[in-house]
Amino acid sequence: MNTIGVDVGGTKIAAAVVTPEGKILNEVRYPTQAVPPNRLIETIARAITEVKDGFEVGGVCLAVPGLILAAENKVIFSPNLHEIENIRLDEEMGRRTGLSVTVENDANAAAWGEFRFGAGKDVDHQVFITLGTGVGGGVITHGVLLRGAQGAGGELGHVTLDPTGPRCGCGNHGCLEALASGTAIQRLARDVASERPRSALGRLAIDRQVLGEDVTRLAQEGDEAAISVLEETGRWLGIGLAGFVNIFNPEVVAVGGGASQAGEFILGPARKEVQLRARSPSRDLVEIKVATLGPESGVLGAAALVRGEDGEYVLGPSKRVA
Amino acid sequence: MNTIGVDVGGTKIAAAVVTPEGKILNEVRYPTQAVPPNRLIETIARAITEVKDGFEVGGVCLAVPGLILAAENKVIFSPNLHEIENIRLDEEMGRRTGLSVTVENDANAAAWGEFRFGAGKDVDHQVFITLGTGVGGGVITHGVLLRGAQGAGGELGHVTLDPTGPRCGCGNHGCLEALASGTAIQRLARDVASERPRSALGRLAIDRQVLGEDVTRLAQEGDEAAISVLEETGRWLGIGLAGFVNIFNPEVVAVGGGASQAGEFILGPARKEVQLRARSPSRDLVEIKVATLGPESGVLGAAALVRGEDGEYVLGPSKRVA
Repeated sequence: MNTIGVDVGGTKIAAAVVTPEGKILNEVRYPTQAVPPNRLIETIARAITEVKDGFEVGGVCLAVPGLILAAENKVIFSPNLHEIENIRLDEEMGRRTGLSVTVENDANAAAWGEFRFGAGKDVDHQVFITLGTGVGGGVITHGVLLRGAQGAGGELGHVTLDPTGPRCGCGNHGCLEALASGTAIQRLARDVASERPRSALGRLAIDRQVLGEDVTRLAQEGDEAAISVLEETGRWLGIGLAGFVNIFNPEVVAVGGGASQAGEFILGPARKEVQLRARSPSRDLVEIKVATLGPESGVLGAAALVRGEDGEYVLGPSKRVA
Repeated sequence: MNTIGVDVGGTKIAAAVVTPEGKILNEVRYPTQAVPPNRLIETIARAITEVKDGFEVGGVCLAVPGLILAAENKVIFSPNLHEIENIRLDEEMGRRTGLSVTVENDANAAAWGEFRFGAGKDVDHQVFITLGTGVGGGVITHGVLLRGAQGAGGELGHVTLDPTGPRCGCGNHGCLEALASGTAIQRLARDVASERPRSALGRLAIDRQVLGEDVTRLAQEGDEAAISVLEETGRWLGIGLAGFVNIFNPEVVAVGGGASQAGEFILGPARKEVQLRARSPSRDLVEIKVATLGPESGVLGAAALVRGEDGEYVLGPSKRVA
């Protein structure tokens, strides 16, 4: 049976009706910033009702960034979405839409999307990392999404790689997120630009704020300063991934999010660190690659995480092997 | 049905017949060092045959330290047990004993023992760390032992906490093992002793090599130098655990191995780091405690990991919930 996946992001709310094979039949999008104050819940409910129009669906799953208590279908903390914090969203949304609604962390949902339909579709063990403004993570091990006791598991972005490193948005120091996110790339680009003012990166930084996509473009054009920014980012990513490879012994590590568009400029140095720091046989097996679904991984994964009253995934047979 | 668990350690080979409830009915032990050259396989087989005497058993599992390719029942690398490296131990041991034999990493087996019969017996998500000469790890998530694609998963001792930190036995720098193992305690004790020669620790270090248990004893007697060694160790342990808490959202973290006898001297500082560095709701849920089975966790866990030809655990109903 078809299901609805909703990606409740800081920039857009996207809802999609998805088939068991992962095909999107209908989709609606609202820019989050256009939502009037105190209308977020109403807008999500409207997106669900609109996208459902005419389709028979087996349930809804909301993918939300931030700290999620999935076991209670609650958002504990979500930086740009305070309005939906600490509410039983299953009850609130169920009442408004007449559908069964659950909540998951957005990176866990995207990880599940890649596992069912993307980079991990042929394997049973996958680590997924999304390099955006922050760093999100999601893990599938023995075919099962690692949700943990409260549905808060898979927070790969907040492992400490350097205890005295830069302060992270979470309050800790030297998290993977503080060292290899889009935000970290911007910070590092600023530093490198001021050290190398005659590089293309340095010259751009005089004119305006350098964005992550600028760094990628300049690297593609051969600017050594921009390349060094992505190398350093990839190195930190690889230090984190080496640990995940040792822990999870996965077949695939899929890297998504905006910064993954830098491709080999980041993944090359990351692979080198994994080979240096991870152990056999895990390091010999793992394939580290760019995720394949792009921004649709969120709605696809959320839709594929909808479960019926029997607890089984509604969206076709799962790949659970454990 | 009863099963046999074998703990193939660097110091002893212990084999036990274990009931489905985790009771040891018979046990034999051989000191590993007394095994003549090229007689290790023979000795393990003899231990199995001797301990089986008169019991009906459903199979055997060997718990072995080092890099294990459990999917092929092979030991890839085991520092003190080179003789059993790169051999199909299921075939070799099966031929010699007439029993079905599988192989697991020793820390994974001990983790499973604690999960079934010890610190994790009432939960579904458990992280287990053993602080011995090295640092071993094992994780149970959603009731399933995290073995990974090749059975090499759960290597928690080799996540990088400080990329430029002390060199680890694995070749990497700044692994948890390099910072919080018994070996790390000895190294740190040497450093602190030379900085504080008038402390009890400093005076002992003049007479002889300080062992991990000396540090614990001196800490219990109130020596500030010894206490600071364990505090520093606990701090690194906590930095690692904070990451594991974020990743796994477990109910319980169980700490075993020789150094866990230092108890609160290590666990107190570790808990502080977890509260500082891990995120809600995971950090609020998790209980960090000393493992309860002591050195028997290996044979008990191995026995409980024996599976029949149907792939199901022979030793009673598992707690698998996923």
